[in-house]
Amino acid sequence: MQKKGHMTLPVEVGQEEVVLDLYKRWQADALRDSDGTSMPDSLAQQDCDIYSVMCLVRADQDFANAHPEYLHRKYLMSFPVTAMGTSVTLSPLKGYSADKYELDDDSDPHTWWEVRNRTTNTVIDKAEWHFDPESSTVEVCNTTPYHEYTVTFMARQVWDSVSMYNALTNDWKGPRIKSLDPYHPACREHLIKHFAHWLETHPNTSVVRFTTFAFLFVIDTGDKNQDIYRDWTGYGETVSPRALQDFEAEYGYALTPEDFVDSGYYNGTYKVPSKRYQDWMTFVQRFVVDFAAELVKMAHDAGKKTAMFQGDHWIGTEPFLKSYQEIGLDINIGAVEDGVALRRLTDSGGDQIREARFYPYFFPDVFQAGNDPVIESMSNWVKIRRAMLQKPLDRIGYGGYLSLANQFPHFIDHVTEISNEFGKYLTQTQRTESQKLPGKIAVLNAWGKSRSWLQNQARDQRFYVPPRPDVMEFVGNNLLECLAGLPFDVEFISFDDVRENGISDDIKVIINTGDANSAWSGGEHWGDGDILVALRQFVANGGGLLGVTDPSAHQQNGRFFQLGDILGLEKETALTMGRVAMPVSLDTEHYLSKALSGREDFGNNSYVYPQADDLSVIHAAGQHLALTAREYGNGRASYLANLPYSQENARILQHILIWLSQEETKQHCWLSDNPYVDVAYYPKTDNVAIVNSSDEKQEVTLLNNKFETVSVTLSPFEWTWLN
Amino acid sequence: MQKKGHMTLPVEVGQEEVVLDLYKRWQADALRDSDGTSMPDSLAQQDCDIYSVMCLVRADQDFANAHPEYLHRKYLMSFPVTAMGTSVTLSPLKGYSADKYELDDDSDPHTWWEVRNRTTNTVIDKAEWHFDPESSTVEVCNTTPYHEYTVTFMARQVWDSVSMYNALTNDWKGPRIKSLDPYHPACREHLIKHFAHWLETHPNTSVVRFTTFAFLFVIDTGDKNQDIYRDWTGYGETVSPRALQDFEAEYGYALTPEDFVDSGYYNGTYKVPSKRYQDWMTFVQRFVVDFAAELVKMAHDAGKKTAMFQGDHWIGTEPFLKSYQEIGLDINIGAVEDGVALRRLTDSGGDQIREARFYPYFFPDVFQAGNDPVIESMSNWVKIRRAMLQKPLDRIGYGGYLSLANQFPHFIDHVTEISNEFGKYLTQTQRTESQKLPGKIAVLNAWGKSRSWLQNQARDQRFYVPPRPDVMEFVGNNLLECLAGLPFDVEFISFDDVRENGISDDIKVIINTGDANSAWSGGEHWGDGDILVALRQFVANGGGLLGVTDPSAHQQNGRFFQLGDILGLEKETALTMGRVAMPVSLDTEHYLSKALSGREDFGNNSYVYPQADDLSVIHAAGQHLALTAREYGNGRASYLANLPYSQENARILQHILIWLSQEETKQHCWLSDNPYVDVAYYPKTDNVAIVNSSDEKQEVTLLNNKFETVSVTLSPFEWTWLN
Repeated sequence: MQKKGHMTLPVEVGQEEVVLDLYKRWQADALRDSDGTSMPDSLAQQDCDIYSVMCLVRADQDFANAHPEYLHRKYLMSFPVTAMGTSVTLSPLKGYSADKYELDDDSDPHTWWEVRNRTTNTVIDKAEWHFDPESSTVEVCNTTPYHEYTVTFMARQVWDSVSMYNALTNDWKGPRIKSLDPYHPACREHLIKHFAHWLETHPNTSVVRFTTFAFLFVIDTGDKNQDIYRDWTGYGETVSPRALQDFEAEYGYALTPEDFVDSGYYNGTYKVPSKRYQDWMTFVQRFVVDFAAELVKMAHDAGKKTAMFQGDHWIGTEPFLKSYQEIGLDINIGAVEDGVALRRLTDSGGDQIREARFYPYFFPDVFQAGNDPVIESMSNWVKIRRAMLQKPLDRIGYGGYLSLANQFPHFIDHVTEISNEFGKYLTQTQRTESQKLPGKIAVLNAWGKSRSWLQNQARDQRFYVPPRPDVMEFVGNNLLECLAGLPFDVEFISFDDVRENGISDDIKVIINTGDANSAWSGGEHWGDGDILVALRQFVANGGGLLGVTDPSAHQQNGRFFQLGDILGLEKETALTMGRVAMPVSLDTEHYLSKALSGREDFGNNSYVYPQADDLSVIHAAGQHLALTAREYGNGRASYLANLPYSQENARILQHILIWLSQEETKQHCWLSDNPYVDVAYYPKTDNVAIVNSSDEKQEVTLLNNKFETVSVTLSPFEWTWLN
Repeated sequence: MQKKGHMTLPVEVGQEEVVLDLYKRWQADALRDSDGTSMPDSLAQQDCDIYSVMCLVRADQDFANAHPEYLHRKYLMSFPVTAMGTSVTLSPLKGYSADKYELDDDSDPHTWWEVRNRTTNTVIDKAEWHFDPESSTVEVCNTTPYHEYTVTFMARQVWDSVSMYNALTNDWKGPRIKSLDPYHPACREHLIKHFAHWLETHPNTSVVRFTTFAFLFVIDTGDKNQDIYRDWTGYGETVSPRALQDFEAEYGYALTPEDFVDSGYYNGTYKVPSKRYQDWMTFVQRFVVDFAAELVKMAHDAGKKTAMFQGDHWIGTEPFLKSYQEIGLDINIGAVEDGVALRRLTDSGGDQIREARFYPYFFPDVFQAGNDPVIESMSNWVKIRRAMLQKPLDRIGYGGYLSLANQFPHFIDHVTEISNEFGKYLTQTQRTESQKLPGKIAVLNAWGKSRSWLQNQARDQRFYVPPRPDVMEFVGNNLLECLAGLPFDVEFISFDDVRENGISDDIKVIINTGDANSAWSGGEHWGDGDILVALRQFVANGGGLLGVTDPSAHQQNGRFFQLGDILGLEKETALTMGRVAMPVSLDTEHYLSKALSGREDFGNNSYVYPQADDLSVIHAAGQHLALTAREYGNGRASYLANLPYSQENARILQHILIWLSQEETKQHCWLSDNPYVDVAYYPKTDNVAIVNSSDEKQEVTLLNNKFETVSVTLSPFEWTWLN
C-alpha cells in the first residue's frame, strides 16, 4: 500500500477488500477504527498510518459501573411549577430522560441544590424546603400562591449522550455507555493506568485519535429521550462538588447552582457570558489541558503521534484557546460541513496537521435506497473548496461504513474526484497561503478569538427543523459562510480585547453581526462608553464598520443601536413609532449600488430606518433598510439587514469590505468579479486557483500580476489552475 | 328648513344654494363654519342649529403677536452631537423648523435647560456650559472625546401646527397663526374677555363648537418643515416655567427637562408612562378642565349649547378621563375613520350627544379629477357600520367645501345612501344598545380606561408611508378594529386598576395585545409579581386570557413572556436558540381549528414556539406559532401572532373570545356565522340589524329569540332590518 495519499479512511471488519480498493482509488494513506468499528488484523498490519480511537472517559465501563460517584454530573433546573397554595412539591427530574439522568445521591441536596421562587427570583431558605429521598421530591413550604418555583439539582448522567444518540438514531446495539469524570484524582489515576495498558496493547497504532479528553459538549434530553437543548461548545457538563470546591479555593468566591442553570438559559454559547462563567471556563480549561497533556506525553513516549477530534468530550481543548498548544497534539481533526467549519479547523494557531472529516458519514440515514448522498456532499464541497483557498488544509477523511458507500458507485466516483482535486490543491499550493486584499477584517463579538469561526446562531435557528438532527445547520445570519471564502485576513476579537489592548493598527474593517442581546452582537458590552469611544475613534480615523442585523444593539440613552450615530440609522423597537416615516430613497450612484447584481438576499424585514440625511440607502425592502453606506469622519460604515450564504451574497460582501477599506478605486490582481467564481493567487508557488461554484458554465475576467486582463472559462463546478 | 335630520354640514360662502340642496338630500339639521370657512349671513338666519367654531387660543392674533411670553412652549432635545475634542458646540434648533420654533428667551437657559452627556447619561454641571445668545449656541467644555452631547431647551412655538399643516398641505393663505397658553393668568383673563365678546357678537350661534381649549397634541417639525414626530394624544406642548413651578409646589418635587424629552422618545403614547409623567398629565388635566368648564358655563349662560371636537387643542379633555364630565359639554364630536375611532367616540361616559365627523374632508387632496372619493368613504363606512351596531351613535357630519363634493355626483348619491341608512338606524334602535354575548372583555394595557379604543400602534407603523399624511392609519396589530364590531361588552383596564382593585368579577376574558415594551403590551408592569399572581388566579379560576403579539413580554427570571406558563409558549429573543426545535403539530380537532376559514391573516412570523406538551396549536406559519389554545386550571388561554383587521379575522376573534369565555357549547341567538355579515339584536325595540360588509351576495343563518333557524340573503353591502 502507498503511503503517499492524503486521506484517512475508516475500516470495517469483514470488508477488507472494499477498504483496500477504496484506499487506492481515493488516495488514502491512513486507516482508522472508530466508536462503531474496530481494526481488522489484516489491515492493522498494513504499511500505513493506523489511527486508533481513544475516548478514555468511556473506555472502562466496569470501572464506571462500579463508581457512580465518578460519573459526569451536571446542574439541571427543574421545570417551573406554580404553587397553587402555600406549599408546592417539585419533582426534579420530571420532564427529563429517566434513561439518562439520576439524582446524584453523592451531592447532599442542602449543600449543592438550590430552590428558587422564579416569580421574584429569590433563593428559598434551606429551612423552607426538604428533599425526600423516598419519593425523590422536594417539598417547599410557605410558598406564595401563583408564584413559580424551581429546584436546581445535581444530576448524575448514567448514559453518555453520544452512546445514546447512536443507540436511538443509528440503532447501535450494545450496552449503554457511561462517561467518567477524570477530575477526581482516584478516577484520573485509574484512567491513566488504563491508557498505559492500552498503549502497550496497541503496537500497530501509529496515531492515537483522542475523542476526546474529559467533558462532553451539552445535550440535554427530555422524558421522551428527545434532545431538548444542544450547545456544541457548552461547559454545562463539567461540574462536580470537588471541582466547585477547588474553584472556590482558587478564585476566592463560590459559584452557585444558578451560575450554571442561568434561569434556564444554561449559558448558551450564543449568550453574552458572565465574568463568573468565564472564570469557570478558564478553571475547567486548565484542568483539561493538564490531563490531556499527560495523555499526549504518554502516547509520544510510546512512539505514537496524537490526534484530536474536535467534538465529543472536547470541552476545554478548543483549538483557538491559547492553552490548547500546551497539550502538544500533532493533528487536529475537525468535522467539516461547510466553509465556516473548515476555517474553524484551519485558522487556529500552532503547527498541527489539519485534517477535515467530511460529511456525510457512511451511515444508513443518508446511504439508503432512493437517497443520493452526492447531493449533500457536493453542497458541502462547494462551500469547503472556496474556504480551502484561503487557508491551507493538510488532509481529508471520512467516517462510517465503506461497504455502505460502496453500494453507491456514483458517490465513489464523486469522492474520487474530490480527492483528486484535493491532491492537486496540495501540489499547487505546497501548503502555502493565498494572497489577501490589504487590511485585516476583525469580527467583534463577546467571545473573540476563543470562538473564532463559530457560526453565529440567529433567532431563525429555533424555527428550523433540520432534515438530519446530527448535522449542525445554521440558519439566519450566515455572513461568516460568505466571508469564509473571500480573500481577506480575518480575525475575531472580543470587547475585552478592545478594552484591554485597543484596536490593532492592522485592522481595517470591524464587523459586528448578530441578533440583539446575543454574544455575537454583544449585548451589555455596548452599554460601556469606552467601547463606543474606541469604535467611534476607529471609524473617525479611517476605519470601516460593518453592522449586520442588530449591530451595537443595547437599549440605553435614547438609542437601540449604540453606534447608530456612525451607521446613521435606528431600529424600531416600539419606542419610536411616532417618528414619521418618510419614503426611503435609493442612492443609485453609489459604488455599492453599482455592485449589486439584484440576486442578493438580505433576509427578513430589518425594522431599521434612516436617522441621518447623509445616509446612502443601497437597498431597502419596502421602507425597511437592507443595505446602507455612510461616511463618518475619515472612515466609512455600512449596515446589512442580514446575509444568508449564497455566492451572490458573498460577492456583495466582498464589495462592501473593499468599500469600507477604501480600496474600491484601486486595482487588485486576481480578484474575481463573477459571483460564482472564486479565485486565489499563491505567491510562493506563483499558481492561481479558479473555482466555479455553480452548475453552469462561467467566465471570469481577472487582472494578472502585471495588471493585464486574463479571461478564463470554466465548466460547471470546475476547479482549474493557472501557472 | 327641516329640523328633523341628523347631520351637520359645513357652510361655504357663495355656495349657499349647494349647501341648501345637500342639506335637504342628506337629511341635515345643523350647519357649521370652520377654520377654513365662515357662516354666510343668509344661512346663519336659517331655522336650524348653527355650530360656530371657537378655538380661543388661536382667536386673537394681535394679542398673540404682542405677547410672545404667552405663546405655547415645549421642551425639545437638540439632536446629539459627538464631541471630537474636549469641547463641543451645540446649536439647539439645528434640524428643527425655523418657521415654527424659536428659542424661548423668556426661560433662562441656566434655570430651565439641561445639557447631557448621552453616552454616559449624565447631566453636565451648569458651570461646564454656557449659552451664547448672539450665536444661539451652547458651548460645552471639558467634554469627553467621542461622547455624544445634547441640550434640552425650551422652544417657543411661533406657528401653530394646524395652521402650518393647512398652509403647507392645503395651500391655505393668510397669516401664520400663533397659539396662546391660557395657563398664564393674564393671558387667560384676556381670552375670557375675548370669548365674552364673541358670545355677544354671535347671536345666531346655537352651538359653540370648541376646537378645542388649551393645548395642541404633539407635532414636531423638521428643518424642511416636514413632520418628524406625531403623537395625537401627547402632552409635550403643555409646558411653561410657571406651570412647572406650580407643579413643584403642588407635588413636592420638580420635573426636569429630561422628564419631557425622555432621551428623545418624548413619552410617546405607545410608551409605558412613568409615574412622573402621569403626575404631569393629571396636573395639566386639572387646569384644562377648569378653564374649559369656565368657557362652557359662559356659553350656557349665553343660552348656547357646547360641542367639543376631539382633536386639535384637546389635550387634557379626552372624553374617557373621569374629569371630562366636569366640563359640562353637551356634544362630543369625533373624527371617525374606522370602527375603533367610532368606539372611541361612542363608548366614553356621560350623556353627551355623540356626533361622528366622517372622512374624507371635502378638500382638493381627495376631491380631485381622476380620484374616486367613494372608495375611501366606503372603506370607512363598512368598518364604521359594524361598530355602530355595538354602541349608539347620535349624529353624523362632514367637513370641507360642499361645492367641491358637489362636483362628484356619484359621491353625493353615496352620502345620501349613508344618511338614509343612518336615519333608519336611529329609528330602528331608538338610541338603545344591542344585545351582547355573556361576559365582559377587558383589554389590559398601561393606560386602561383613559386611552380606551385608542388604536394600538405597532412597530410596522414606522415602515408605513400613508397615502394621505393627515389621516391616522394604523398598521400592524389591528385587533381592536376586529373587536370594534363584535357583540361583546368591552372595557379597558390598566395594570394600576388590577393592582388597586383586582379584576372585576364581570370580566370573563382579558386581552393583552401589543409589541414588547409598549404601553399596549405593558413592559415593566409585567415585572411585578402581583400582576402575574392576579392574572394566573384569574385564569385558574375560570377566566380567559388572549395574548397577542408580545403578551406579558418582559425579559426577567428566565421568561420573556411572563405568562408563558399559562399560554404554554415562549418567544425566541436570542436567549434560547439552543432549545431544540421539534416539528409543530396541529390540533385539527379543536373547536378553534374547526372555526378557521383558511382566509385568516395572522401577520408576520411570530418567533414564538411551544413550551408545553398540552398546547393545542391551531395555526402555525412554518414553525412559528400563529394561533394556539390551552387550558390552565379552570380557565383557558389563547395566543395570536397578530390580527390585522379583516372580516375573516374579526370572525375568528369572535370564536376565540367565545371559546375563552367557555360559551362555545351554548346556543346564542342572532349570532352570525358568516364572516362577512354582522348582526345585532336590539332587545328594547325588538329589531335586528343585518349588515353585509362584502361586495358579494351573502347568506347568513341565525337563531332567533326562540332558537329557531332564520336565513337571510343580502345583496352586496346591504344593510337590512328584521322586526
